[in-house]
Amino acid sequence: MRILLVSNHYKEATQTVALETVKLLQGQGLDVEVDDEWETMQDQRQFDLLIVFGGDGTILRAARKYAITGVPVLGVNMGTVGFLSSIEVHELEHYLPDLLNRRFRLDQRMMLQVTVQKAGQTSQQGCCLNEMVIKSTDHQLNNIMVEIGPDQVGKYRGDGLIVATPTGSTAYSLSCGGPIVDPELELMMITPIASQIISRKPMVVSGDKTVKLSSVDDRGVLIRLDGQVELPLEPDAVVSVQRADYKLNLINLKSTSFFHHIDTRLRRSETL
Amino acid sequence: MRILLVSNHYKEATQTVALETVKLLQGQGLDVEVDDEWETMQDQRQFDLLIVFGGDGTILRAARKYAITGVPVLGVNMGTVGFLSSIEVHELEHYLPDLLNRRFRLDQRMMLQVTVQKAGQTSQQGCCLNEMVIKSTDHQLNNIMVEIGPDQVGKYRGDGLIVATPTGSTAYSLSCGGPIVDPELELMMITPIASQIISRKPMVVSGDKTVKLSSVDDRGVLIRLDGQVELPLEPDAVVSVQRADYKLNLINLKSTSFFHHIDTRLRRSETL
Amino acid sequence: MRILLVSNHYKEATQTVALETVKLLQGQGLDVEVDDEWETMQDQRQFDLLIVFGGDGTILRAARKYAITGVPVLGVNMGTVGFLSSIEVHELEHYLPDLLNRRFRLDQRMMLQVTVQKAGQTSQQGCCLNEMVIKSTDHQLNNIMVEIGPDQVGKYRGDGLIVATPTGSTAYSLSCGGPIVDPELELMMITPIASQIISRKPMVVSGDKTVKLSSVDDRGVLIRLDGQVELPLEPDAVVSVQRADYKLNLINLKSTSFFHHIDTRLRRSETL
Amino acid sequence: MRILLVSNHYKEATQTVALETVKLLQGQGLDVEVDDEWETMQDQRQFDLLIVFGGDGTILRAARKYAITGVPVLGVNMGTVGFLSSIEVHELEHYLPDLLNRRFRLDQRMMLQVTVQKAGQTSQQGCCLNEMVIKSTDHQLNNIMVEIGPDQVGKYRGDGLIVATPTGSTAYSLSCGGPIVDPELELMMITPIASQIISRKPMVVSGDKTVKLSSVDDRGVLIRLDGQVELPLEPDAVVSVQRADYKLNLINLKSTSFFHHIDTRLRRSETL
Repeated sequence: MRILLVSNHYKEATQTVALETVKLLQGQGLDVEVDDEWETMQDQRQFDLLIVFGGDGTILRAARKYAITGVPVLGVNMGTVGFLSSIEVHELEHYLPDLLNRRFRLDQRMMLQVTVQKAGQTSQQGCCLNEMVIKSTDHQLNNIMVEIGPDQVGKYRGDGLIVATPTGSTAYSLSCGGPIVDPELELMMITPIASQIISRKPMVVSGDKTVKLSSVDDRGVLIRLDGQVELPLEPDAVVSVQRADYKLNLINLKSTSFFHHIDTRLRRSETL
Repeated sequence: MRILLVSNHYKEATQTVALETVKLLQGQGLDVEVDDEWETMQDQRQFDLLIVFGGDGTILRAARKYAITGVPVLGVNMGTVGFLSSIEVHELEHYLPDLLNRRFRLDQRMMLQVTVQKAGQTSQQGCCLNEMVIKSTDHQLNNIMVEIGPDQVGKYRGDGLIVATPTGSTAYSLSCGGPIVDPELELMMITPIASQIISRKPMVVSGDKTVKLSSVDDRGVLIRLDGQVELPLEPDAVVSVQRADYKLNLINLKSTSFFHHIDTRLRRSETL
Repeated sequence: MRILLVSNHYKEATQTVALETVKLLQGQGLDVEVDDEWETMQDQRQFDLLIVFGGDGTILRAARKYAITGVPVLGVNMGTVGFLSSIEVHELEHYLPDLLNRRFRLDQRMMLQVTVQKAGQTSQQGCCLNEMVIKSTDHQLNNIMVEIGPDQVGKYRGDGLIVATPTGSTAYSLSCGGPIVDPELELMMITPIASQIISRKPMVVSGDKTVKLSSVDDRGVLIRLDGQVELPLEPDAVVSVQRADYKLNLINLKSTSFFHHIDTRLRRSETL
Repeated sequence: MRILLVSNHYKEATQTVALETVKLLQGQGLDVEVDDEWETMQDQRQFDLLIVFGGDGTILRAARKYAITGVPVLGVNMGTVGFLSSIEVHELEHYLPDLLNRRFRLDQRMMLQVTVQKAGQTSQQGCCLNEMVIKSTDHQLNNIMVEIGPDQVGKYRGDGLIVATPTGSTAYSLSCGGPIVDPELELMMITPIASQIISRKPMVVSGDKTVKLSSVDDRGVLIRLDGQVELPLEPDAVVSVQRADYKLNLINLKSTSFFHHIDTRLRRSETL
């Protein structure tokens, strides 16, 4: 069994725990590697298990990098409460037998594939677990045209637009008035950010459809993936957002239910 | 081909048009009956087509009564703009050949089955196309416990709670901050009405789950189906809401897309 | 010095504390009376101090009854956290010297005068500290015409309408999307309840103006004052809401500031 | 009588109309000058009347530049519907006698003075008619500490924060969930932008108070005045926002009331 540990190399405490875990796992005869450098890609297909130390931010990064390989991912929480991690760091040793013997629920989380096209040619690609955001580069009001499948929805005017997954429903989309969505569902939310047009409301769209976005203005526009990756858009670029072909396989060691006392978890997470 | 015409017998104009349509259809040798009395049930299984004259309100009533038979339903709009009707009354003659030769798209709309149980026994049942609402009888603040599938979500405190279908997303739920939902999706929305608990937000739940509601207070509580049928709840009653086994088969003669310029249609419908 | 104690006679604990306080105060040679019956009016002008035991609900009742006399009112909290009480019941003895020697800040809170007119004649009157609500008697959608001063604002369609004071901004109006308002300000908020018209938003109106409301529908309409008093409206009645001539003089023994960590107080109060 | 015409030199049509108006006024023997360059300040005290051609954007710019002089300002609308202009361009000739003979209502609009301090020293100053916004330079989530007068309100986490005037209540603040405010009132609104903390709600604060904002993060923060002027903030800078000593004297030739059919005006302005 080959295990990859992912940790945020900016945070010393996380690094220390990761190294201790390496020793713990190697002591059990397991093959363990560490990814603490985000830039270099590993040979991804060879791992049987991914353990991510940190908060939701670190799991988001790992999801965009490794979800495509289908590897089961365990989020180990380091101090900050999140929606994606399954256990606290002090619980790791206790749950290790369950983990190594694959006694856990696997939650499949829909991800989004984002493709930027310019004159019909794909110029950029990326994926996200929470959401894709389109905004103007200079904080100015922008105008975005939205299509859903074959339907012209019309113009959105405001700070920008979010296309979110169910997993992303408790993140940025919620701050902009979007609903909380069952992560079992396969759908997209289109949530306007500070819409100047009052009748623009958050919309829930089938995961089978493609959402297309394009800027109507001359000014610069950028897209952001999970609030972590930023891509400037060229003029006349069209952004297509659709369900990715793969899912994130999230390990749920405690069989935690999403809706169980969700308001308590929302309150806890918001005060970080 | 046996056709049933449904019209609101409170509105004279609607009645007149219904009678003219009867003559028009009988002139073409069709077997036509009229339902303008809501209380008496027809022998439902025998009709091949249902034509409903009126606004969304009349279609909601017809849906709760006839959707279970699987009959295709055409909404013919009478003056008020709605989301459920397919054509205006003056377009009926033009579209008659398409209608009678079954050249139309059929939109399947999810409905909700609502079951009230008291001490484990079913005491009342009903269905709805838009939404089920639970409120206190006396306009006072109430406390409702919510379960989603096996999960205890917790207490809602406010004016009440809506459980809506995607079709109902443009109705009462929207007024309470719920999202606009693709009617192709099979899901339920739980939208609090004037929630006193700030962290209670609209939630989108899989259509495969059952939502259970019960009042925590001593005061009287009632449920409303599509804003048209009102049932008082006995103390200790539990309301279960789940997807109905059948769909409403809504005739879409113009292949109108739901998201096409939806903001324009929202604005038009809201000023009625 | 003549003191009136007000307590909720439905709550035994509150009654017990009130009686103990009577003894405590009488032991100091003070003239003390108790009001635990809401129906009979006292000769109000003779008291120098009002002490209210209970939650915000009891203070609201006392405000509507006694604020007009100008008497300073101390809210003593009994278990439930509120925005109107100044001290907890166990702190009363400690603060008694301050109270009796008038060493406290007096917060003046604007109240609303509500007048119902029918054919130009005043048919009913009342006042409120938090808000006035207009709703339909049967939970149905209603249409309310709103005037602000000489301006015709137009029709509101939904569950009803709130006219709230700054003090009421943390109560029902907040649940319906209204802002939190500095209680030092003299203004009214008009907050729609579940508005079907998307462009109807909470409005903040000068306290110098009169807001007039009238129902456009045939159906029954009622008004509610502070969620505690309910008055049915006759057809064609016009409701005028304006600032009352008097203020509630609320004793603030700890000089608590309204905005100090307001989010913490909001969270605490909402989970009751 | 000395008149200053202000027009947006980026828009040719506006320039043309301005020049025609110059001739029209000079033909009546009036002393007219034109300001179409924003950078150079005029000797401001000498004008008796300011006529601004354009949309709300041009009036905002003129307000920040000339309001301090106390000169009455007439907004002449050029195609786009706004809340600040009094007449359409084709109405100018008709209203000229009223204008020159001072037969108009003067609406006094509160403005905000924004002062940036660093180590107790004022480093930057500015004013605004609509709102001041604080955001992070890089579109990332930021944490802002807020004080109102002597009260520590606490931390805001999200896209940023708006401090708006009543005039600004129909602009950016409205898009972020703020209320619509009577422009006669003297108050400030603190409206969070996409707040991650659910219990942070729009707040209405007395115009007598000072609001202080400071960033808690290491990352860059900027402030924007009326969406038109952008100032980067140095680390440890404190932004103080308070009512300006002067008002904008806005000419209201038609005595238009703010609340008269406000929803119609909101709808019209939002579709631009």
